[in-house]
Amino acid sequence: MNDFPNSHFKNVPLEKAYRLLTHGATVLVSAQHEQQRDVMAAAWACALEFKPAKVTVVLDKSTMTRQIIEQSGYFVLQVPTYKQIDLVYQLGTTSLHDMPNKLEKSGVKLFYLEDSEQPLVAGCSAWLVCKLIPEPHNQQAHDLFIGEVISAWADDRIFRDGHWHFQDADPEWRSLHHVAGGNFYLIGEEVSVQDRLKSP
Amino acid sequence: MNDFPNSHFKNVPLEKAYRLLTHGATVLVSAQHEQQRDVMAAAWACALEFKPAKVTVVLDKSTMTRQIIEQSGYFVLQVPTYKQIDLVYQLGTTSLHDMPNKLEKSGVKLFYLEDSEQPLVAGCSAWLVCKLIPEPHNQQAHDLFIGEVISAWADDRIFRDGHWHFQDADPEWRSLHHVAGGNFYLIGEEVSVQDRLKSP
Repeated sequence: MNDFPNSHFKNVPLEKAYRLLTHGATVLVSAQHEQQRDVMAAAWACALEFKPAKVTVVLDKSTMTRQIIEQSGYFVLQVPTYKQIDLVYQLGTTSLHDMPNKLEKSGVKLFYLEDSEQPLVAGCSAWLVCKLIPEPHNQQAHDLFIGEVISAWADDRIFRDGHWHFQDADPEWRSLHHVAGGNFYLIGEEVSVQDRLKSP
Repeated sequence: MNDFPNSHFKNVPLEKAYRLLTHGATVLVSAQHEQQRDVMAAAWACALEFKPAKVTVVLDKSTMTRQIIEQSGYFVLQVPTYKQIDLVYQLGTTSLHDMPNKLEKSGVKLFYLEDSEQPLVAGCSAWLVCKLIPEPHNQQAHDLFIGEVISAWADDRIFRDGHWHFQDADPEWRSLHHVAGGNFYLIGEEVSVQDRLKSP
């Protein structure tokens, strides 16, 4: 029943992939090189380009995830949900360097797409599989990594037809927006310029 | 009474500046070079480093704001509020290239810090005054601009003691998180890992 990808796991056209990140959610970053794999949390991830879809993510030199990405040349950004807040916090505050069984201990469930060696985190709302665009200066001087999105996916219970549907779904689906430590804001109410102009 | 900076305009220590951006809000980007000034909206802005505080922002080649920043070497990122949604939309969808009176028409109010020629947008919740770190390759290849934060400010009705206080304030203060077109999400409920662990 918990098998992933499940029937709600749907492809997102690459030209809509930016919408998975534009609202500024905290993400999980996963990567694998041969038998080594890791997942970390990152609040500093951002869309960079519509077409080809590109993203940035800041990865500290102390993280094993970064080392793996430098070896594999691939990473996955995924948007976790309020239901996963404990998982996000654990993956963001423990390091594979100090805790070799970090992933097992966190309870994170990983799954794989066909023909891909990159691990995706089960239970998230959206996933962007990225190919690293090597930029040694950015990586070294700014801890800044750039990726081209090669496939994008979302759970259709929360993102479908190119749009998030937070307002129609259980609050457990809401994205997390990090502040500091174990504190986050959930994404909130949907508003539009049109509504505003119509209101008295 | 609408004079800025007003009594709520307070300095934010540079080591806390990242907290103004980490939750992923859409920002306004302002800049001035000699008599030329512009303000645009940008959903793709992100913290890059804690100390020295650094930020990234994606600026399309078509924008006048970008041209001004390349000349002046400075820019300001500010966090607008729900109350300003119409302003954000207007500044984000009109160009000084096509509409020379864009700023007047938008009704944006600008103010200046002592000893600075950079315009700040009145009525926002937070401001980061940045010095461009010139990175010609990033700017040309990725439209990606990096700045070092040289001073940070916030309205103490919504950010004080190093923390946002969205939950205690009128919803008009909430930050905007862009989706597409005139559609945004407001930042929502505050949650913490501790609350979650305590809840039944």
